[in-house]
Amino acid sequence: VRVVLVETRNPLNIGAAARAMSNFGFFHLRVVNPYEVAYAEARSAVNASAVLARSQQYVTLAEAIADCTLVVGTTSVGPRVLEHSLRRLEAGGRIIRESDGPVALLFGSEKFGLSNEQLSYCHWLLRIPSRDEHGSMNLGQAVAICLYELIRSESEELRAPSPHRSAAAADVQRISEMALDCLRIAGYINEKTAESTEMKVRRVLLRAGIAEIDAPVWLGMFRQILWKLNNREPGS
Amino acid sequence: VRVVLVETRNPLNIGAAARAMSNFGFFHLRVVNPYEVAYAEARSAVNASAVLARSQQYVTLAEAIADCTLVVGTTSVGPRVLEHSLRRLEAGGRIIRESDGPVALLFGSEKFGLSNEQLSYCHWLLRIPSRDEHGSMNLGQAVAICLYELIRSESEELRAPSPHRSAAAADVQRISEMALDCLRIAGYINEKTAESTEMKVRRVLLRAGIAEIDAPVWLGMFRQILWKLNNREPGS
Repeated sequence: VRVVLVETRNPLNIGAAARAMSNFGFFHLRVVNPYEVAYAEARSAVNASAVLARSQQYVTLAEAIADCTLVVGTTSVGPRVLEHSLRRLEAGGRIIRESDGPVALLFGSEKFGLSNEQLSYCHWLLRIPSRDEHGSMNLGQAVAICLYELIRSESEELRAPSPHRSAAAADVQRISEMALDCLRIAGYINEKTAESTEMKVRRVLLRAGIAEIDAPVWLGMFRQILWKLNNREPGS
Repeated sequence: VRVVLVETRNPLNIGAAARAMSNFGFFHLRVVNPYEVAYAEARSAVNASAVLARSQQYVTLAEAIADCTLVVGTTSVGPRVLEHSLRRLEAGGRIIRESDGPVALLFGSEKFGLSNEQLSYCHWLLRIPSRDEHGSMNLGQAVAICLYELIRSESEELRAPSPHRSAAAADVQRISEMALDCLRIAGYINEKTAESTEMKVRRVLLRAGIAEIDAPVWLGMFRQILWKLNNREPGS
């Protein structure tokens, strides 16, 4: 995918687009007829990314997309009547991902978006499903969202730790017993209703969904409380 | 969903977060202990959104999340060892969408992210699946991507025009005949191979996938060429 910024005016937006590209692993940035000062400023920023350093500048949109087999324009769909097919990002993103040739993804100027002439180079248009009431999105955010959609995956995160394993029943049982010992000494358990109270405490601790790695902490807390209850100063 | 910005330093980022919220229809912005000047500047910007105007300021994170039943922190997972469960945005977003109580979505400061103390208020953590090599994302872009994921839908765009209907076979046939008339006069069709050439032309025009609304344009173009071919000046 080639990200093509057309007539961008704000250096912060060029930088933000490049940063989002780097975040998501896209490295081909092309700028068409940018506001020269903005482009120079973006490239010379201290935190300018390698993406920006390797970006290519074109005078015309036709040159910038010459090697692409699919050209997709982004739009916020203002009042203009659109001659093109329009796809939501979710559906359009799938087509882009499955494309077997280079794809150009076009973003127009901050103020006007893509002109009708620029749109005429596009096979179809892509729309981020934002609220109509609000109008257009920030350019850097629009680039980031489109690229996120392209790398999005329903597969599980491999490098992330999996949600903590639940403690084994035996561990929860030991915690419950320690808690019940505390509660007996503390006078929480009435002799008559002891059995139902004990069941309630066990149920509550089970429902707490204690993680395996937290079991020793729970046990330690109740053990310490129990120790204190058994060793308290008279009258304290 | 309540978007909670914790110790944000840059007014542009507060504004960008508010703008993305408005784009995607989220209206509860809470800021915790912001850099006062930044918050004031963001609120007074000419294009400050209604979201920002209605945002609420808190001194502590505990107050900002008090009414939430699920508290999710965002992280770029730096070198810190994480004590929390970590979910990719795709999977975590699903849980947030299905939550039946208010959810707080926390974003830390631009420089340090969420501190360990702030993370201790979170039920689990969310990670935008960006490249590890690149480090953290821009705050405004991170907010925009998370909210996009929450409103994302595989359903078809309802308000968008559907992709253009293909022209009926009869229309393509008429275009082909008009084109063949032109080609015959132009000397493109050799008598010996006429049949196979005509089939080739028909195949090519069928493969072009001409849209219904474009059929008259194609027909008009060939008709005009045909007229010119039949009415050309001698020697021209």
